[in-house]
Amino acid sequence: MLGIDPGSTATGYGVVERREGRIQHVAHGTLRPPRDGSMARRLDVLYAALREVLEAHAPEVASIEQVFVARGARSALVLGQARGVALAVLGSRGLTVYEYAPTRIKQQLTGNGRAAKLQVQRVVRRVLELDRTPASDAADALAIAICHAQAGRLEQLGVRRGRSSRRRSTGPVVRVRRAP
Amino acid sequence: MLGIDPGSTATGYGVVERREGRIQHVAHGTLRPPRDGSMARRLDVLYAALREVLEAHAPEVASIEQVFVARGARSALVLGQARGVALAVLGSRGLTVYEYAPTRIKQQLTGNGRAAKLQVQRVVRRVLELDRTPASDAADALAIAICHAQAGRLEQLGVRRGRSSRRRSTGPVVRVRRAP
Repeated sequence: MLGIDPGSTATGYGVVERREGRIQHVAHGTLRPPRDGSMARRLDVLYAALREVLEAHAPEVASIEQVFVARGARSALVLGQARGVALAVLGSRGLTVYEYAPTRIKQQLTGNGRAAKLQVQRVVRRVLELDRTPASDAADALAIAICHAQAGRLEQLGVRRGRSSRRRSTGPVVRVRRAP
Repeated sequence: MLGIDPGSTATGYGVVERREGRIQHVAHGTLRPPRDGSMARRLDVLYAALREVLEAHAPEVASIEQVFVARGARSALVLGQARGVALAVLGSRGLTVYEYAPTRIKQQLTGNGRAAKLQVQRVVRRVLELDRTPASDAADALAIAICHAQAGRLEQLGVRRGRSSRRRSTGPVVRVRRAP
């Protein structure tokens, strides 16, 4: 399962898998196209880098943060550009993309829909038993992937999956599986 | 020269060339990814279709409309997604992308920076000696390409090119070359 957190300057990605009933870390990273290139060049670099991530890890599903409101139309446009490139790459591999509201992701991981970035980073580190706290963008991407992995587990248990394209609800709170 | 007018549901493109001192029509069209697919699928279709356009016509430069403000953050995000895909495709071919403000394009073609869509369509048809009036999105794309072709001609004449990434000015008004 791949989580992606696209941004205008940096795009985080995180790959997790469910193995033996647990969510396990596979890979994560942050893609930073060169800032001195043109926007077209940077978005092309992002496209190619994300293709490589997909080819390396061959995820079966992808999840991405749902955007409700950006700070303004200008930043929404720039964010949209990176997001569009990410979605096109996911579409090129025929992946189904699930969207989760930011509050839902934070709520599910930390129990608090308004959790600070650092808190999300710490929970991600603990859940995946990482040696180091992942950087913010990658941690957000891992958080989305974890959120989806847990939602899938809920679905198997008969609880509605929050594809949440239209729903404002943050869905059921799920306690994060502690590393043993 | 390629002009692109990306949009959330339809993306227009237009190709023109300068030949014997005149701007001539090469091709134009509107790309409409299937509306029933997911956003990721639609953006992937857009990416692939634009790649085909570039492979078919091998333009040397591309131009795109500059976005100042969208109606709101939500529509800016959706427009940004299509725009990002278009820019990534242009970047993948190493094309230099010129941006022109909408008012500049209209001003240059029609003499009126606030010209109606239909007026732009008519001028595009007349300048390129088309048998039929091109559809709105394709006409806008052709208008951008024409604008760039004329700007290039001005540059050869020693007039500053309006790459206009930061400038609000609509640049010098240029009378459209009438078809003989």
